[in-house]
Amino acid sequence: MVCSDDGIHFHQPEGYPLLQGEGEDEAFGIEDCRVVLIEGTYHLTFTAVSGHGVGVGMRTTKDWKTFEKQGMMIPPHNKDCAIFEERINGKYYALHRPSSVSLGGNYIWLAESPDGIHWGNHKCLIKTRKNKWDSKRVGAGAAPIKTAEGWLEIYHGANADHQYCLGAFLMDLNDPSKVIAQTDEPIMQPEADYELSGFFGHVVFTNGHLVNGDELTIYYGAADEFVCAAKFSIQHILAHLKYNHAT
Amino acid sequence: MVCSDDGIHFHQPEGYPLLQGEGEDEAFGIEDCRVVLIEGTYHLTFTAVSGHGVGVGMRTTKDWKTFEKQGMMIPPHNKDCAIFEERINGKYYALHRPSSVSLGGNYIWLAESPDGIHWGNHKCLIKTRKNKWDSKRVGAGAAPIKTAEGWLEIYHGANADHQYCLGAFLMDLNDPSKVIAQTDEPIMQPEADYELSGFFGHVVFTNGHLVNGDELTIYYGAADEFVCAAKFSIQHILAHLKYNHAT
Repeated sequence: MVCSDDGIHFHQPEGYPLLQGEGEDEAFGIEDCRVVLIEGTYHLTFTAVSGHGVGVGMRTTKDWKTFEKQGMMIPPHNKDCAIFEERINGKYYALHRPSSVSLGGNYIWLAESPDGIHWGNHKCLIKTRKNKWDSKRVGAGAAPIKTAEGWLEIYHGANADHQYCLGAFLMDLNDPSKVIAQTDEPIMQPEADYELSGFFGHVVFTNGHLVNGDELTIYYGAADEFVCAAKFSIQHILAHLKYNHAT
Repeated sequence: MVCSDDGIHFHQPEGYPLLQGEGEDEAFGIEDCRVVLIEGTYHLTFTAVSGHGVGVGMRTTKDWKTFEKQGMMIPPHNKDCAIFEERINGKYYALHRPSSVSLGGNYIWLAESPDGIHWGNHKCLIKTRKNKWDSKRVGAGAAPIKTAEGWLEIYHGANADHQYCLGAFLMDLNDPSKVIAQTDEPIMQPEADYELSGFFGHVVFTNGHLVNGDELTIYYGAADEFVCAAKFSIQHILAHLKYNHAT
């Protein structure tokens, strides 16, 4: 675990445990942790990998020293789970990404919950798009960002060549099952050497960010090897959305 | 829909709607409906099939005339969902069967719920067994049967040749995440002509039953073509269980 005062320079603090896989469902490890602060409790959702399959695990903490295990939140095959940072009309919401063995695909779904632990009423939100940069798989990044226009989600998409870029979509503020806009083109694509080549080249993949007014700092993995940061203007991203006037 | 006074002779009553797929998530239809009566409300869980994937849909009814849609209970890829007919220490439980695109397999999982609608704390219960009749996939039948020894579940298993048989396992009465026994051999296998050949031959597959004292009437699909019934003694099934003394 690392911490920072400015979001750019990090150091390893003493007395904080390393997060690692524990128990049968995490036997092969945990990956791609998203963190949201909901009503004073940090909710960590991560990919839990084991011989049982690949699902979404959850732990909660208030102090980053003691963690409460909440079990497997969404069963296999599932990844890329991002919980909304506040309740909407009393309900918790989360984005997640099932994968299908037949029919369906690697699509982004929405779930709702009365308590942030148990989930239901799953709905398919964002599908892959033929002949585009997100033709093969899509998955949520970090928690949706609340804006005046709606809940803004930065997501990753990959094409058939496993090249990962970032895009964005916008959900209705009062009913996030309504997708009202989406970017046509990526808002970020691998360009730098360290993004184009590495452990898994041609990848930018985010699961964390900081919001400071209009400034969005996206933390992202480059080529599955480096952790990087990139700054965006939220208004600039919103301006690139293409509204779906049909819905 | 059909009804019966004796469980053997059926007729089609008037004034009851046909259950069929409705909405985007059921565009290709609904299949293999399980029904449980919980506190006066019938909970129907079924496989919902569409271009979004194959998941578990839920509807509830009190009178079989009006139905309340509870959305998709468990997201793709998932089938074979059987809810327990009573709460255990205040919680609802359900068996379900995810399928995995990598790691894991076609295993039976357990989920818990505070309200019977939203589910979490998923745990892998029953895995396929190498070189046995249930080597390729397993899935729950109807609701677990409460016995003095534990919750008895009749399940289907298939081998690599897609030959389906029925077996049984037993869960702890107070904590169904503990599997305490399982049958080694099938309790039923395709033998009759109408089980061995048909739309999908060599299949017996159950998702409904009646319990009357020790008598268990299992309703099952034969060769994916006929609906049949077979009577069992619950004590006889229990006697065939092999207890797992390690747990």
